[in-house]
Amino acid sequence: MNGNTNPASQPTMQVISSGDELRRSVRDAQRSGLSVGLVPTMGALHRGHLSLLDAARAECNETVATIFVNPTQFGPSEDIDKYPCDLESDLQLLRQHGCDLVFVPSVAEMYLPGHDTWVEVGEVANCLEGLVRPIHFRGVATIVLKLLMIAPADHIYLGQKDYQQTLIIQKMIADLNIPVTVRICPTARESDGLAMSSRNSYLNAEERQQAGALFESLQLAERVAVAGERDPRVLASRMRQQLATAPLVELEYIAFVAPGSITPVERIDGPTVVAIAAQVGQTRLIDNSLIG
Amino acid sequence: MNGNTNPASQPTMQVISSGDELRRSVRDAQRSGLSVGLVPTMGALHRGHLSLLDAARAECNETVATIFVNPTQFGPSEDIDKYPCDLESDLQLLRQHGCDLVFVPSVAEMYLPGHDTWVEVGEVANCLEGLVRPIHFRGVATIVLKLLMIAPADHIYLGQKDYQQTLIIQKMIADLNIPVTVRICPTARESDGLAMSSRNSYLNAEERQQAGALFESLQLAERVAVAGERDPRVLASRMRQQLATAPLVELEYIAFVAPGSITPVERIDGPTVVAIAAQVGQTRLIDNSLIG
Repeated sequence: MNGNTNPASQPTMQVISSGDELRRSVRDAQRSGLSVGLVPTMGALHRGHLSLLDAARAECNETVATIFVNPTQFGPSEDIDKYPCDLESDLQLLRQHGCDLVFVPSVAEMYLPGHDTWVEVGEVANCLEGLVRPIHFRGVATIVLKLLMIAPADHIYLGQKDYQQTLIIQKMIADLNIPVTVRICPTARESDGLAMSSRNSYLNAEERQQAGALFESLQLAERVAVAGERDPRVLASRMRQQLATAPLVELEYIAFVAPGSITPVERIDGPTVVAIAAQVGQTRLIDNSLIG
Repeated sequence: MNGNTNPASQPTMQVISSGDELRRSVRDAQRSGLSVGLVPTMGALHRGHLSLLDAARAECNETVATIFVNPTQFGPSEDIDKYPCDLESDLQLLRQHGCDLVFVPSVAEMYLPGHDTWVEVGEVANCLEGLVRPIHFRGVATIVLKLLMIAPADHIYLGQKDYQQTLIIQKMIADLNIPVTVRICPTARESDGLAMSSRNSYLNAEERQQAGALFESLQLAERVAVAGERDPRVLASRMRQQLATAPLVELEYIAFVAPGSITPVERIDGPTVVAIAAQVGQTRLIDNSLIG
């Protein structure tokens, strides 16, 4: 808990692997009138995750981070075993950022043998990332609901970088009456603008250098829109030209959608989200930005 | 609440149409250390529903019944508008049985415009009733999860009559870590053994008389099994002969499954659930019994 009366003492962070134990802790805190913030992660923590935790600490009395590389959101062609993992470093970072409870469950703790229940969000999950990763969002929605059942927090903190994921989780929470409010926090970026992602560690030096082109293309779209261009096709064309200067960046899609939705816009007449996905070497990267 | 010190006073039953208000009431009760039991219904209450409420009252400090004819569990060929409905009578029955809170939401309260999130239980929902009613169990699982998010009860009470439904809700609750325990209560029956169902009111006098054959066939299966018959095919054949004496009863299926599952059994070597479905006139009836 944050109400630490001795500023010199290091607050104690509890590492919990049992869902029942975590639920008891969260409920005990809430029964004492404390608010609880949840930061779900797959570990390999970076400044983006930690900014979510900072936001949770600023708003809530007690913070819960979860570290679980959720197998059900990886497709058969996606190598879950390759996903970066450094638990000791993650725990150290969470401790330094004043996290109160960390939930580090095993796969067996999270999925019963014969698990066969899925939360499916419809239309908003079936485009953009959903086209490329058909079971991804089903796995995401299911695990987030499960985590919220285990840690029934007052607020859940998500990163704007995974724009479509934030929409899906918000939709699920609204449609299923889950009693939690969603906080979306800004994308943390490297000095060249590359959105922070655990997957950035896959990039070799040359790929890493060229990966900055994604954010540059989003910035270009913003400049061209501010200069008066209203046609998303023109903006996309300019972005493609820009991305062509980074030959290791293989564009998958550029989408212009109304904020809070995946509804394509035909004309930039107000704030618009530009979402982009690209393959950089073997690594798939996504980013987005609000323009207009 | 049941801790009524004056037996002469009629306890006050609250009728609530707002999900937020119900959630507050349930949480307030739980914060005061009271346990809460939930009895979800579609109204048209009969002795079966009331036995669930009685079980909830016996176990919990506070009881919540819900009355909501859930549109998403009716297929396009199923006439939801025909579903029996008598709210005043239902409320009177609940009051008489000491219910504390009744939730009677509108469809608009329960489903946001553009509702698009579904809870899908896999294999256990895809056979028996699921074959005849393809979207039925998706609607059931989704609405029960939603009701549990609105009324986060300690225990939920379900009737054994809807055997497959009890399996699906139990599976959903286990797979999704929903913090509630399931209580399954025995099927309430009419004097001739017909399982109580709101749909029985659809039957005309002749259909109603012949509908008793369903339970008679389950009893026959029990007798033949007790007499030593181990082959489910023989039992089914005997049941079919029996049902042939009721020409208005059009059998859909007879299934022999292991208790707590929809796994067919090849031989009656222990307790076995016999599940039966039949069309009686325009009315579809189901029943089940434990034999062996």
